Amino acid sequence: MNATLERMFHDQVRDIYYAERKILKTLSKMGRAAKSPELKEAFDKHRGETEVQIERLQQVFEMLGKRAQGKTCPAIEGIMDEGEEILDSYKDTPLLDTGLIAAAQSVEHYEIARYGTLRTWAKHLGMPEAAKLMQESLDEETATDKLMSTLGLQLLKKNAVQEAA
Amino acid sequence: MNATLERMFHDQVRDIYYAERKILKTLSKMGRAAKSPELKEAFDKHRGETEVQIERLQQVFEMLGKRAQGKTCPAIEGIMDEGEEILDSYKDTPLLDTGLIAAAQSVEHYEIARYGTLRTWAKHLGMPEAAKLMQESLDEETATDKLMSTLGLQLLKKNAVQEAA
Repeated sequence: MNATLERMFHDQVRDIYYAERKILKTLSKMGRAAKSPELKEAFDKHRGETEVQIERLQQVFEMLGKRAQGKTCPAIEGIMDEGEEILDSYKDTPLLDTGLIAAAQSVEHYEIARYGTLRTWAKHLGMPEAAKLMQESLDEETATDKLMSTLGLQLLKKNAVQEAA
Repeated sequence: MNATLERMFHDQVRDIYYAERKILKTLSKMGRAAKSPELKEAFDKHRGETEVQIERLQQVFEMLGKRAQGKTCPAIEGIMDEGEEILDSYKDTPLLDTGLIAAAQSVEHYEIARYGTLRTWAKHLGMPEAAKLMQESLDEETATDKLMSTLGLQLLKKNAVQEAA
């Protein structure tokens, strides 16, 4: 069974490696598009974290004795398309940032699902070091998701106050 | 701002309505493919929950005074494509169920992201009843995700024991 699990693990590492590199590009774009300084800052910070997450995956490829190589991930392509749609539809409205946050949170939840699975599989494969790396990325994604929820709420309240003024 | 937020809310309700109806079909397929009775049962139970989630969305459309109508959701299409790929690649291996669980968890996390956003926006729009419905669906998805994690771990352990025997 472990040979098959290792193959499946490798497949999923390739999938999220592809996804993270796409996300890295998109985070720059979202950072430029965001209107509020707090959200810009959050995207910039997460960009730095994503770079580290990519390095962690490269370490996992090494542990597997494989070349770091992505594999097209249709899920992230679809999630990104929705983000682009929000960017296009709401770019001239006061709610662009609110939309960007929704888009970012679906990206984060995709990563939360993937890193959770990879952490569990790595443990089972007797790769505690890889499991630790995947847990670190999982924790960062969970924290970013919470930060986005907080920022989202703040922005909605701020917009409401400005409108009432 | 609330007119724009209501439009964005309506857009996202249409997105998840489309996704849920896709998911309903896929859950039947996953239930048929799953090998372990516990996983089959979990997919069947979640199929019932998904039917209720679709009804909740229909209630929200009514509250908005709109016709219940989906809108193509590229994210769920991509997530589903990955699930199909796992089904094809691992259907004759003892790890099919493990792969199905990984696929299911990325679907659940997409829904967790969406329902969390919709709940927050509904509150802000002064639609407490809609917010309550979205919270109920969010709670079900969170519980299903946890159940899948537990089942996934049990299956890996069971396979390892069988292999050692």
